[in-house]
Amino acid sequence: MTAMQVTFEKDDHDKRKRVVIVGAGFGGLSAAKQLGNQPGVEVVLIDRRNYHLFQPLLYQVATAALSPADIAVPIRGEMARYANVEVHLGQVEQLDLANRLVGTPDGGIRYDYLVLACGAKHSYFGKPEWEPFAPGLKTLEQATELRFRILSAFERAETTLDPVEREACLTFVVVGGGPTGAELAGALAEIARNVLVRDFRRIDPRDTHIVLVEAGKRVLSMFSEDLSQRALEDLADLGVDVRLQERVVEVDAAGVQVGDRRIAARTVIWAAGVQPSGLNQHLGVELDRAGRAIVQPDLSLQAAPNVFVIGDQAHAEQDGKPLPGLAPVALQQGKAVARNILRELAGKPREPFKYFDKGQMATIGKQRAVAETGKLKLTGLLAWLAWLFIHIMFLVNFRNRLAVTSQWVWSYAFGKRNARLIIPKTWRSYGDHGEI
Amino acid sequence: MTAMQVTFEKDDHDKRKRVVIVGAGFGGLSAAKQLGNQPGVEVVLIDRRNYHLFQPLLYQVATAALSPADIAVPIRGEMARYANVEVHLGQVEQLDLANRLVGTPDGGIRYDYLVLACGAKHSYFGKPEWEPFAPGLKTLEQATELRFRILSAFERAETTLDPVEREACLTFVVVGGGPTGAELAGALAEIARNVLVRDFRRIDPRDTHIVLVEAGKRVLSMFSEDLSQRALEDLADLGVDVRLQERVVEVDAAGVQVGDRRIAARTVIWAAGVQPSGLNQHLGVELDRAGRAIVQPDLSLQAAPNVFVIGDQAHAEQDGKPLPGLAPVALQQGKAVARNILRELAGKPREPFKYFDKGQMATIGKQRAVAETGKLKLTGLLAWLAWLFIHIMFLVNFRNRLAVTSQWVWSYAFGKRNARLIIPKTWRSYGDHGEI
Repeated sequence: MTAMQVTFEKDDHDKRKRVVIVGAGFGGLSAAKQLGNQPGVEVVLIDRRNYHLFQPLLYQVATAALSPADIAVPIRGEMARYANVEVHLGQVEQLDLANRLVGTPDGGIRYDYLVLACGAKHSYFGKPEWEPFAPGLKTLEQATELRFRILSAFERAETTLDPVEREACLTFVVVGGGPTGAELAGALAEIARNVLVRDFRRIDPRDTHIVLVEAGKRVLSMFSEDLSQRALEDLADLGVDVRLQERVVEVDAAGVQVGDRRIAARTVIWAAGVQPSGLNQHLGVELDRAGRAIVQPDLSLQAAPNVFVIGDQAHAEQDGKPLPGLAPVALQQGKAVARNILRELAGKPREPFKYFDKGQMATIGKQRAVAETGKLKLTGLLAWLAWLFIHIMFLVNFRNRLAVTSQWVWSYAFGKRNARLIIPKTWRSYGDHGEI
Repeated sequence: MTAMQVTFEKDDHDKRKRVVIVGAGFGGLSAAKQLGNQPGVEVVLIDRRNYHLFQPLLYQVATAALSPADIAVPIRGEMARYANVEVHLGQVEQLDLANRLVGTPDGGIRYDYLVLACGAKHSYFGKPEWEPFAPGLKTLEQATELRFRILSAFERAETTLDPVEREACLTFVVVGGGPTGAELAGALAEIARNVLVRDFRRIDPRDTHIVLVEAGKRVLSMFSEDLSQRALEDLADLGVDVRLQERVVEVDAAGVQVGDRRIAARTVIWAAGVQPSGLNQHLGVELDRAGRAIVQPDLSLQAAPNVFVIGDQAHAEQDGKPLPGLAPVALQQGKAVARNILRELAGKPREPFKYFDKGQMATIGKQRAVAETGKLKLTGLLAWLAWLFIHIMFLVNFRNRLAVTSQWVWSYAFGKRNARLIIPKTWRSYGDHGEI
């Protein structure tokens, strides 16, 4: 590591401890909120984006139901009421745990406590060259890129005179049968069957072929077996062609190879594995097989107790099993870490983190979902209404509930999708902004 | 002109006349709607975008008040109920008036009547090299690019340690004092004073310096003199530094040169001249000084009576003066052209176009606007409420009224801007989509 110029030094007269939080996802944001306006700490919240993203609804942007701004809130806006929180827009490039420094392009930032909550990106199982042909769905740019590809494919199908190309345009392959993959496949089927059906003159969007490829034995494998089965039936009802225990062995510009069968498809979407942020490589601590940092029961690093790792970036165990990479886990971890920091500053011992599982849900098209909490299981319309209610309530914090609710009412009641915009990224003569 | 392959030939058994409309702006869309479901005609509506854009509200996207999808509707959705209208996504590259052919990358399209409604883009008065430094505001891409630049400038101001750079980041120059320029300058002042004020820790967004440069004697020169004066006062109240009768002589990466004074500004926005679509060069007819095609009283070309040119692309005169480039003009012209085509097919003579001027309005920040219709003039809160009411009513056609209304209620009541997203266009490894 090169020596870091410290531009963001601590003020000697300031007796407060500085907590630097990297990443304003569910984990980082909840930690920052918990520390907000607490005497004794100042907080620097760093993210390379200026917004916090409600990732579970990204597939709704990709399928033109919601706009980017409906599921994203400016971080500064969220932090405005906490005078002791400073938001720093930038990419963390270096970590110097020995000298307690975080490196950004603007220089080093000194910390007393460090919370790493950088999340995860897609993993192509050692085939990064597949990414251009099969984008994932973790960022807003990816969501609008997918929206562009999906809508353009229908346009191309309408225009082309070549029946082979038309079929490839109307074939969509989703790789991975977890919540993102299942929800995307369902939403795609919904669009083709209900939204676009009267839009075209030469093609019938109902001819759309949606293939969901899952290497495992069932879709939504984190749910109980009967709910997986119900989700499978719901997908089949929507006309989705689900291929279980099949493996994608090749992805290129013309389509995918599944086992020994070739599927010509202009649009391929990756919803399979994830891997944590590259920052873990700089920690010098033990990582699990997926690359997540192995943390102590209080979510700190054994080698550096003032450094915490949470969310998708961490491997935390409970009852002998690693916790899943879900928003509620990250959220609760952020809160727990912040509380432990405050306890320690008050002279109290830290407490181990305990995840409280409120259950899980996934929606498959309109009026279909699966949900389970404890022993209670819901399916069909009831599960979907529960999904809708919980998501609207959750989005209350986003201050976008009015807009999202009205979009949804509109969309579900009239089968319209307002965000059906094809916006190519060709306005490029203005130069590269760099990733900030 | 190279020979065109006709891929979209007319069906001999189809006795209907084909009307090809190029451009789905206000003019083209209103013509298509008027011809929708009319026996005797089939319509091909061509646009290089898949959406119709409500251009007068673009400045609200640029200033993070609305999302792109709030002011854009998919053209196919608008045309779905007209079985005789086919939407074609593509860029018109050639015209062959002699053979009645319109050329797109997918081949030639035969027409009986042609309606050209391609609108206008910004004109840099012979200095196209200024464009990268001072984008205009005619497209959604430009609006989101401006949003990116504006929000990034505040972020950079917060981060930088260099006071000179900080000042340049907080200086915004708007070139042109027409409606777009005045509304943009007002909205920028609103953001700096009311929206961002609690977001930053190191800068005070109220230190923002907004300069509006207008070469003429007054802002909003199409309004009567006292309303121009009132708009000028409203802008001054908001802290906008209006420079009348001054001329921008140089624009570069570091700022602008106004007369013999240099203004260092990281963000420059072009809202000065416009020029019509390049297609006019291929018409072989007389153009006015601004490049608009000179049309007959019925909006057709003298040399080709079955070709109509409308909206910003046309120079139509009324009472000896050219009609202004406004949405209502284009809208009424589209309707009139469609009616004349239907009259002609019914064996009736065409009627000359007559523009009915309902008045004009411009809004300057929150609760300030100017409006006039006939001899009635409104200013201040009353004009602003009229503006709000008329725009919400207008957007009813957009089916986005719920979302837009709720965004506006939110934004005006609580001083929030939900669409405050900085989205760099760096997701470029996926290749160039081309402009479709």
